[in-house]
Amino acid sequence: MVDSWVNAAERIGVDLHLELSGLSGPGGRRAALTRALREAVRGGRLAPGTRLPPYRSLAADLGVARNTVADAYAELVAEGWLTARQGSGTRVADRARPLRHAVQSPVVAPPRARGPLFDLRPGTPDVSEFPRAAWSASYRRALQRAPSEVFGPADPAGRPELREALTEYLARARGVRTEPGRIVICSGFAHALRLLFGAGTLGPGVLRGPLAVEAYGLDFHRGLLADAGVRTVPLPLDEEGARVERLGRERGVLLTPAHQFPTGGPLHARRRTTAIDWARARGTVVLEDDYDGEFRYDRRPVGAVQGLDPEHVMYLGSVSKSLSPALRLGWMVLPERYVDGVLAAKGEREAWTSVTDQLGLADFLTSGAYDRHVRRMRQRYRARRDRLVEALAARAPDVEVTGVAAGLHAVLRLPPGTERPTVEAAVRRGLALEGLAGFRHPDTDMPPRDGLVVGYATPAEHAYGAALDALCGVLP
Amino acid sequence: MVDSWVNAAERIGVDLHLELSGLSGPGGRRAALTRALREAVRGGRLAPGTRLPPYRSLAADLGVARNTVADAYAELVAEGWLTARQGSGTRVADRARPLRHAVQSPVVAPPRARGPLFDLRPGTPDVSEFPRAAWSASYRRALQRAPSEVFGPADPAGRPELREALTEYLARARGVRTEPGRIVICSGFAHALRLLFGAGTLGPGVLRGPLAVEAYGLDFHRGLLADAGVRTVPLPLDEEGARVERLGRERGVLLTPAHQFPTGGPLHARRRTTAIDWARARGTVVLEDDYDGEFRYDRRPVGAVQGLDPEHVMYLGSVSKSLSPALRLGWMVLPERYVDGVLAAKGEREAWTSVTDQLGLADFLTSGAYDRHVRRMRQRYRARRDRLVEALAARAPDVEVTGVAAGLHAVLRLPPGTERPTVEAAVRRGLALEGLAGFRHPDTDMPPRDGLVVGYATPAEHAYGAALDALCGVLP
Repeated sequence: MVDSWVNAAERIGVDLHLELSGLSGPGGRRAALTRALREAVRGGRLAPGTRLPPYRSLAADLGVARNTVADAYAELVAEGWLTARQGSGTRVADRARPLRHAVQSPVVAPPRARGPLFDLRPGTPDVSEFPRAAWSASYRRALQRAPSEVFGPADPAGRPELREALTEYLARARGVRTEPGRIVICSGFAHALRLLFGAGTLGPGVLRGPLAVEAYGLDFHRGLLADAGVRTVPLPLDEEGARVERLGRERGVLLTPAHQFPTGGPLHARRRTTAIDWARARGTVVLEDDYDGEFRYDRRPVGAVQGLDPEHVMYLGSVSKSLSPALRLGWMVLPERYVDGVLAAKGEREAWTSVTDQLGLADFLTSGAYDRHVRRMRQRYRARRDRLVEALAARAPDVEVTGVAAGLHAVLRLPPGTERPTVEAAVRRGLALEGLAGFRHPDTDMPPRDGLVVGYATPAEHAYGAALDALCGVLP
Repeated sequence: MVDSWVNAAERIGVDLHLELSGLSGPGGRRAALTRALREAVRGGRLAPGTRLPPYRSLAADLGVARNTVADAYAELVAEGWLTARQGSGTRVADRARPLRHAVQSPVVAPPRARGPLFDLRPGTPDVSEFPRAAWSASYRRALQRAPSEVFGPADPAGRPELREALTEYLARARGVRTEPGRIVICSGFAHALRLLFGAGTLGPGVLRGPLAVEAYGLDFHRGLLADAGVRTVPLPLDEEGARVERLGRERGVLLTPAHQFPTGGPLHARRRTTAIDWARARGTVVLEDDYDGEFRYDRRPVGAVQGLDPEHVMYLGSVSKSLSPALRLGWMVLPERYVDGVLAAKGEREAWTSVTDQLGLADFLTSGAYDRHVRRMRQRYRARRDRLVEALAARAPDVEVTGVAAGLHAVLRLPPGTERPTVEAAVRRGLALEGLAGFRHPDTDMPPRDGLVVGYATPAEHAYGAALDALCGVLP
């Protein structure tokens, strides 16, 4: 006979799945158990160091005498498959190396784990500064306080605690005018785009293309839109930001008004009004990507365009720049007429944002920890920005630096034809850099510019000086 | 002049976005600041109770004298817009009720928050038993120990710590044979289906239809597959489980071998072998949905089918039944040939599972807390199952109970034609129940059966007795 047995009867102990065969064969239960355990260890299913259940627990689960289990363990200890040590129980021995499959555990390293020596690519905050203790404290407090329903099926809109906290925070710090019923929690900007533009299993989405976008922007976002069947139409940029007066028959416009990504300037007040007027006249919306709105270093930062007209702006934000992209937490602040459509698109099937993290963030916001973290990081990034500007002034005075009033990156203008050789020289020296070319919309009629997009927030504090040195060393 | 200013210069304090106008007008800065603050409170942007920055902080941010801020606050306290109390700073007064928008905060309650009096629908564990303290401790420990890269961009496969822990756990407790390189973390079963079958922005996926499924199953899953363009072909069920000998030219089969959902039996050993043989011969896979494999109450439970042939079974699991669906944590254990395809489909755009929760679960598994929780809940659910069976024997002896050897639900067979009236009678008494009809594949040729799918894990412990009473009260 062959049967699968699992020890399941005791409060103590751990689960152990065994294939027991030949219980009534020679040696009876003890031999069968010994054989099954040996096979599980030799075959590699039970890895070295795995702790086995206590005698009593396994015996109860298998319906055999405690001594049967004790004898089987003892025999395998004698054979060297198991080890027994006072206080730490019985474990699979280290020498019992499992026979690994052909695939040698290709544990893919995260993109930046074993990358360049220095990294000045934009898009990531200094992850070594994640406020572990404060975040864990908020998380724990929030879980202790939470009603039980929190651990059941989730509301697609997101937890009310977080939507309340965001309503207060975004109004106070970013000039956003909304209420919890118009906020939908999602897993970041890319998820928001998917929910808005639909495609595939999501159906058609609440918005349609063609969509006007800035002539320089994130290729990843353009790709997501293209995959959703949305044509993007580039708006040229000048020193006042995107030339929104060129908006025509598009069905919407995606802007980074607080800090154009990647060129770095804010959208001029006149242009903000022009964009809103256009959206009103066309009965459509401005999509406001406020990706790093909290990080402004001068005294004339700009609030959210959303505050000008909450019914014609969708405001999209996340903690990816302010805290960490690892939390996968973002939000959409919607005009009233889109709320039902987005919730229907999201539904049960897209409610993928960890509810416990949502509660953690709500506490992090309401306790003031978020403000403290942002203000601390703002000081730090401002100091880095100043060091960058000073280093360039001293060591590469011909390189113009722009877009430094806000955000986590600066743009260094380079002489025509020098961008690509500079990026390549940097790579040879172990410095990861991104040129402007990769951000350019393929259809724009803007003349190409040579430049570097320097993410000065990316390195850890201790590595920043060396990264700056490396940067100055490769500039033309 | 109109300008947006934000207090951004101090370490202490909080961010406050103000629209300052007429700085050089009558009354100068103090009047402009008072006006801007009054407007923000009156307009509802600053909600009652919102704490304002300290004088010093706001003064530094705005570049005005500290007394200017103090005077403006004092004036608004006198007007009743703000309140100042020793020790708690200056806040927006409670009487300053914001003018809410037309939409009255439709904070949508989660499906079960304000639902029926009693809930015996299947699919949810007893959420009041979520191990808050142990989980928070694991989370905190994991965050303290984690390398900084954890907080940067994520690996689409998921954290290596979690894939290692799952490899060990699934091998030990479920008989799964794998290695970390073949595990991909996702946000639950629905997400896994999306990743496997693609559609829309994901491209075609690594699997194709038509897909054989069990004649009774979750309508939600059938809907997801239909949306991805996958036709499902129902396999009839009998007392040995799905009749897999009927498998023909389908491109794959989705099974719940450990505990058929919802009818409740395990797939017979013969059938397990038949399904594997078919997948080998066709060069395709068995999709194994091990949704509640940890909960078995007798001594002859079944391990994962995956252990029979890791190259022809995709094993899918999650913490939704064992811990909570709120964590949005699941995993796919893949045959080697599908790993690259799934990772490519997932990529950056679908890496939506909270990395911090992944680390928390890795610690929860390796510290033994997961085993302890599962074993504790198994005892509890077994006791509930026993109470259900006893109550029915005493009060509705004609009702046959099946599928009770495992899992979190039982099936109560009802006389033909009585299912619908029973469910409706239950609803009238405030008892939420689900009949078998909702789980039936529309294309199956199985004769319909009347029955109830009773989720005995759903209520909190204190509510279970009353829920059972209500159930017995409505049975025919």
